[in-house]
Amino acid sequence: MDSIKKLQIMRIKGQESRIEEDVVILEYPFTIFVNDEEIITLLCSPSSLKELMVGFLFSEGFLNSLEDIDRVRIDEDKGLGYIYLKDVNSFYEKLRGKRTITSGCGKGTLFYHVLDSFKSKKIEEPLAIEVERIKELIGEFNKKSELFLNTGGVHSCALCGKDGIIMFEEDIGRHNALDKIFGRALLEGIETRDKIILTSGRISSEILIKSAKRQVPIIVSRSAPTSLSVEMAMELGITLIGFARGEKMNIYTNFPSLIF
Amino acid sequence: MDSIKKLQIMRIKGQESRIEEDVVILEYPFTIFVNDEEIITLLCSPSSLKELMVGFLFSEGFLNSLEDIDRVRIDEDKGLGYIYLKDVNSFYEKLRGKRTITSGCGKGTLFYHVLDSFKSKKIEEPLAIEVERIKELIGEFNKKSELFLNTGGVHSCALCGKDGIIMFEEDIGRHNALDKIFGRALLEGIETRDKIILTSGRISSEILIKSAKRQVPIIVSRSAPTSLSVEMAMELGITLIGFARGEKMNIYTNFPSLIF
Repeated sequence: MDSIKKLQIMRIKGQESRIEEDVVILEYPFTIFVNDEEIITLLCSPSSLKELMVGFLFSEGFLNSLEDIDRVRIDEDKGLGYIYLKDVNSFYEKLRGKRTITSGCGKGTLFYHVLDSFKSKKIEEPLAIEVERIKELIGEFNKKSELFLNTGGVHSCALCGKDGIIMFEEDIGRHNALDKIFGRALLEGIETRDKIILTSGRISSEILIKSAKRQVPIIVSRSAPTSLSVEMAMELGITLIGFARGEKMNIYTNFPSLIF
Repeated sequence: MDSIKKLQIMRIKGQESRIEEDVVILEYPFTIFVNDEEIITLLCSPSSLKELMVGFLFSEGFLNSLEDIDRVRIDEDKGLGYIYLKDVNSFYEKLRGKRTITSGCGKGTLFYHVLDSFKSKKIEEPLAIEVERIKELIGEFNKKSELFLNTGGVHSCALCGKDGIIMFEEDIGRHNALDKIFGRALLEGIETRDKIILTSGRISSEILIKSAKRQVPIIVSRSAPTSLSVEMAMELGITLIGFARGEKMNIYTNFPSLIF
């Protein structure tokens, strides 16, 4: 399915105005069912849907490894994703647990995750990396992202080893892009504890927590981190880098992991 | 409370690196209680919290007008907001309704809102406006926003009449910034059906729906709209303008409302 949609717009430039064809980024409702129970509708870009579903359910605690999954099915035309977990009981317990915590609706689970994260395990295997290597990765990332910058509405995310980008995903939501990365890593059995996450989007506490759950030691963003993400990165021993553009970057936490 | 936090960072620029003081934007967990029942924790900027609480609860359907509110209380230090609604029964019904719809967790109510919106009332009072007037409003908006662009992590949102900006809010989340605007409009009894929304953020379906609920006839963004927001704006008779920067802008829907 196309990630963009063509339409007629009126473009204004100074005193000129004309009708012309343009593209907007597709916003695609994707509803996830776990063992036939409806869980959520994500608004996303219609690519890597299986990865998104698996990554989201991992981030939210519905599954912990590939072994938990019996089978998956995606109906792209209807925007539906079905996943069947082997252990139905533990899934239902999690669902009930969530119900109690959120008291009804919305994004209410998040704060509990925020608190949880301080109980999260610190990064067990710190990763040392050359600053020059990070600059090269950023260059590679920006080149790849440029393709998608045209529509102005997409975030990109990559998982990198020291030798370069291993996988690259894009989505209208920065959380979705990251979930796609982690879903793919799970599905393909790729270890993340010795890798680096690059993202075009802001690093909020939620992005930090998702990455910490996968024990990613270094997170690099083209954009800004928030206070909470910096505090959590400090606590968990994650190296947090923001405003990574060209030759410039800001290192917020865990300076000693960098090699000059 | 400050919206930013100072901290020591390592700034890298080419081959140079030095430790210096920098600021990051505060990410503040704010938990909302309705009639002493916990509803949600928003991650936000710690300003206009009463407005955020009221605007959010309006957007989510917990209240419909100022008359529904008995009293509110904000505990800024602890990040807690309490609102007491007069009609407890209707609130509980809504909460129960939501429970059924979302099946447990997350952002699951959204798609139902998306569907709902097509049943939403069309804009009853279209607003005709000069293109030159919009450019002036954008100029005023950009000037105000610049203050907050330093930290790189904040969205701004404004409610405007034809004569200029009436109110201006900022938040780390574009949804929060819009909820603050609508909360303030409700609290101050300001009509929105003859006004214009300006936002720095992307226009997704959720932003469109929030504005449609308040019958705002024109939405202008510095950033991109999504396909779903364009479709909904078309359906509801909303004028949708994107990439509004300086002398340029793209008009996506409802061209006839503009005066050249």
